[in-house]
Amino acid sequence: MIYMDNAATTKPCAWALDKASKFVTEQFYNPSALYEEGFALQSELKKARSALLSKVADENAFELIFTSCGTESDNHAIFSFAKRGNAVTTAGEHSAVLVPFTELKNRGVIESRIAPLQKDGKVDVEKLLALVDNKTSFVSVMHVNNEMGAINDINEIAKRVKQKNPRVIFHSDGVQAYGKIPYRLSKDIDLYSLSAHKIGGLKGVGALIKRKSLNLPAFIFGGGQETGKRSGTENVFGIKQFAYASEKKFETLIGDFDRLTAERERLANGLDSEIYTRLSPTDGTPYILMVSARGLRGEILLHMAHDKGLLIGTGSACSSNSKTRYNKVALACGYDEKIADGTVRLSFSPETTEQEITDAIAIMNEIGRDLKGRMG
Amino acid sequence: MIYMDNAATTKPCAWALDKASKFVTEQFYNPSALYEEGFALQSELKKARSALLSKVADENAFELIFTSCGTESDNHAIFSFAKRGNAVTTAGEHSAVLVPFTELKNRGVIESRIAPLQKDGKVDVEKLLALVDNKTSFVSVMHVNNEMGAINDINEIAKRVKQKNPRVIFHSDGVQAYGKIPYRLSKDIDLYSLSAHKIGGLKGVGALIKRKSLNLPAFIFGGGQETGKRSGTENVFGIKQFAYASEKKFETLIGDFDRLTAERERLANGLDSEIYTRLSPTDGTPYILMVSARGLRGEILLHMAHDKGLLIGTGSACSSNSKTRYNKVALACGYDEKIADGTVRLSFSPETTEQEITDAIAIMNEIGRDLKGRMG
Repeated sequence: MIYMDNAATTKPCAWALDKASKFVTEQFYNPSALYEEGFALQSELKKARSALLSKVADENAFELIFTSCGTESDNHAIFSFAKRGNAVTTAGEHSAVLVPFTELKNRGVIESRIAPLQKDGKVDVEKLLALVDNKTSFVSVMHVNNEMGAINDINEIAKRVKQKNPRVIFHSDGVQAYGKIPYRLSKDIDLYSLSAHKIGGLKGVGALIKRKSLNLPAFIFGGGQETGKRSGTENVFGIKQFAYASEKKFETLIGDFDRLTAERERLANGLDSEIYTRLSPTDGTPYILMVSARGLRGEILLHMAHDKGLLIGTGSACSSNSKTRYNKVALACGYDEKIADGTVRLSFSPETTEQEITDAIAIMNEIGRDLKGRMG
Repeated sequence: MIYMDNAATTKPCAWALDKASKFVTEQFYNPSALYEEGFALQSELKKARSALLSKVADENAFELIFTSCGTESDNHAIFSFAKRGNAVTTAGEHSAVLVPFTELKNRGVIESRIAPLQKDGKVDVEKLLALVDNKTSFVSVMHVNNEMGAINDINEIAKRVKQKNPRVIFHSDGVQAYGKIPYRLSKDIDLYSLSAHKIGGLKGVGALIKRKSLNLPAFIFGGGQETGKRSGTENVFGIKQFAYASEKKFETLIGDFDRLTAERERLANGLDSEIYTRLSPTDGTPYILMVSARGLRGEILLHMAHDKGLLIGTGSACSSNSKTRYNKVALACGYDEKIADGTVRLSFSPETTEQEITDAIAIMNEIGRDLKGRMG
């Protein structure tokens, strides 16, 4: 099987699993235990925290708390600060951001304002800024769009948002950016969400980076772990494996970025343009290529690709529960329903080989022509 | 090292790790993926759900959602239903229950009412019932106390609470009960919290059992996983390992219960009564023995035991963050500060051997006499 659904989840990094395995088999203690085996785990957590944070932010200005997933990180940020007036986000967000916004709107807590996307999947910054006013409490703009692969310049957007209203708390979902594209968080970013399983970590592990001077309320209350912000016995094994997996990713980030950019272009250019319309921008993440077989159904292509040994998505796996037929992000980019019905997402990892890209081109063209032929 | 801090966390079950490892190395897919490898994981999650639930409850009347830990399960239950009037809990609860109660009190959402404990660590049922009135929205009573080991008859308590006010939602923290003592949940229990890492599962995995007809609000919002109640990509590996670990526990539950009851008694009787006062009741869980070296400090004994190769606790590991010197549960049971300062908790697992109990007796007596001698 050729696995090209890495934006949904990635295969856990074997090296990181091996390195972290001692936290299951030997050092399985409770990090809150008062004997030295417990203290030692606190120090391991500290090392993991620092390793993960220092890759993208200044440790003097930011800190990191561990959570159970990217969705929890997003929820923690949103429910903590979208508390009054209005809150602004984009039509391209993951459901982990959009659904909390809807929930807060339905509860009557905030007015929810959704900025539109450009054709390339980036948020329309001018229209987003027009939604920000002196009653805006919170703004959330995802870093890399999980469907289109578009990269938002979050540092620049945050700066401009704060020029308009310096009291706004600015959050970004960085789940598809971390360990994949080069960046550093600027001081205008207040909160930033990570997920382990998108970069070779395990499911069930995430993190929320916060500006140190920001007073983040607790989200889960209890024993006071994670400086009281997120109680619950720390998942030491998952956290250490996440840190090790990220180490691997950052070691080769630039090389992977350049190689996968070239491979993504080769794939995009190799697809039959009579069938496939490219939706992902050329300046997006190299880890994602979204195309649409206009007039065909993406979900049927997904099953046909599967039968040929290629695993792909039609868009966010997490929105598959919503049972909507049309890709919402494609619609938000201004594409018509025929495009939004035909989307398929191919997403890569540093392990994706040249041969796999070549095979994917052949399979996608074969099934696209086959299905188009059958549709008359 | 002799590990007798199993109430804080247990060593992950090697057999269950091995059985579940394929969900890391091969079947690492996103359960929401639309290809059959994704569907297959949904079916694996369903099997795990059923296996865990059926051990303690009627699957026609109850359902189970996976969470990231026992603390999240408790928070989910409490923040969902302790929403008006007053809410009642006990002085023996874990901080995962007590801290949310305090938070809701501080927010002005509820009046928080705390029922006292008896000397044996059980809640004083008559006093608890006296706190329940027609304005009570929520009652939470832990099943097995994590410090004293006392077992509350939650089915009977829930029944009597509902006789007094049938609209009350009744929750129990079952973290120290599940897989350790025999029971079935009655229809009067609305919500029940589990944690994987207390029975050979991994940290970062929990569950919330709910009565099917109860309309539980979502706690974490996003992709709609766990029937919309708990979004976030499912931790398939952790969940399967939890289910396998529980299988092992339930296979030998009665035999382990009887053997550990005898071993706990042997340990309790073997301790020098000039030094140690037994706090745990004889009818409590066999997995916990709490004693106090009156006039000595439990934390010093813990370190001395460590130097002799015995790992024990002074009480809940999770309250070690609170930096309070006295064991709050011992105080709540009516013991004086000298007793509450001298508490040590020895907690067992089915892997605890007869020899380890014998050695623990010798070590505890040696260090107790040593410290007492030094204190003059």
